[in-house]
Amino acid sequence: MEIAIPLYDRFTALDAVGPYEVLWRLPGATVRWVGVQARPYATDRGLKLVAEATLDDVPAPDVIVVPGGTGTRDALGDERLVEWIRAADATSTWTTSVCTGALLLGAAGVLDGLRATTHWAYIDALSDYGAEPASERVVRQGKVITSAGVSSGIDMALTLAAEIAGDDIAQAIQLRIEYDPAPPFDSGSVAKAPERIRELARSPSPTPA
Amino acid sequence: MEIAIPLYDRFTALDAVGPYEVLWRLPGATVRWVGVQARPYATDRGLKLVAEATLDDVPAPDVIVVPGGTGTRDALGDERLVEWIRAADATSTWTTSVCTGALLLGAAGVLDGLRATTHWAYIDALSDYGAEPASERVVRQGKVITSAGVSSGIDMALTLAAEIAGDDIAQAIQLRIEYDPAPPFDSGSVAKAPERIRELARSPSPTPA
Repeated sequence: MEIAIPLYDRFTALDAVGPYEVLWRLPGATVRWVGVQARPYATDRGLKLVAEATLDDVPAPDVIVVPGGTGTRDALGDERLVEWIRAADATSTWTTSVCTGALLLGAAGVLDGLRATTHWAYIDALSDYGAEPASERVVRQGKVITSAGVSSGIDMALTLAAEIAGDDIAQAIQLRIEYDPAPPFDSGSVAKAPERIRELARSPSPTPA
Repeated sequence: MEIAIPLYDRFTALDAVGPYEVLWRLPGATVRWVGVQARPYATDRGLKLVAEATLDDVPAPDVIVVPGGTGTRDALGDERLVEWIRAADATSTWTTSVCTGALLLGAAGVLDGLRATTHWAYIDALSDYGAEPASERVVRQGKVITSAGVSSGIDMALTLAAEIAGDDIAQAIQLRIEYDPAPPFDSGSVAKAPERIRELARSPSPTPA
């Protein structure tokens, strides 16, 4: 089972690494990190992850995981990336996204007519691609799974792991990565965060991206 | 505020990227990715993250975040890394670890006499370093914060973010990364996972590392 994660400049590291940490543990899985070029790609804030293959090297993966990031807007204009997603989706078993990666799925035509989710700050943009925005953490529509902002990719990947390998394997992976979340606050969604926190999170500073 | 994350071969990606995704959003924060050499370091399963500076380039960071991984055992034998942790801890404001990164703190003498935690499969090893093993998700002892396996670094970093910048900033960061976890199962700790899942997670296959 070949799992492809396409990188682009200023993607968000956790969008990609959360699902990676779950999915590489699936029996028989190989994760391929790909990009328009095979080179290191910088995340939102400096850290670089290496795409070791080009998009052309991995034309027909079984699973696609498209991350979001502050660079999504520019990536939407890169027809090589969007066309790869379109073509890969045509033969994939699962097509998934994290955060604003959903907009890239949208640009590739994958979300037309489907319910879908993305980062809360970009949820309305999904309608530009014919999708029905759904403020949920993980939205499955047939073989297409979209998930909410940044950290939601872990939940999405565990859901996907269960679909691929069964509940027991997914649960064993959850235990392996000790995913028993205990955030010190309960402000992780717009529905739960107080208004002053929502305002602070919306302001460009001090918490960019 | 300089935050250093030391890499070594076969570290676990999420151990490092979880805290990064929280801490780079702190006002005035700069994250430095460091290694014995400045080069890409491979994670448990192929993905490479780039250390852009050497340990010597960043001798006195304000915050240290030491990740774990299947390579921790070898890293424990690398005196350059262990000595850097020891020296950096002498002047740090905060010294932290995720997963088996705690064993590296232990080898550097940081945990002597302290309560500490690590990945559940390695919790007993903490006593080798004079620490008192605590099966908790995040353990703070003065300026030293250790956290449990892999995904726990997100919770640890939000705790640390609140200490550094206050609860409101930490909560705004939580909302930015939409950390409103909703795992599809409740098997993320040894206390919660059924026995058959614990057995599966302990077996070297199908869920290595």
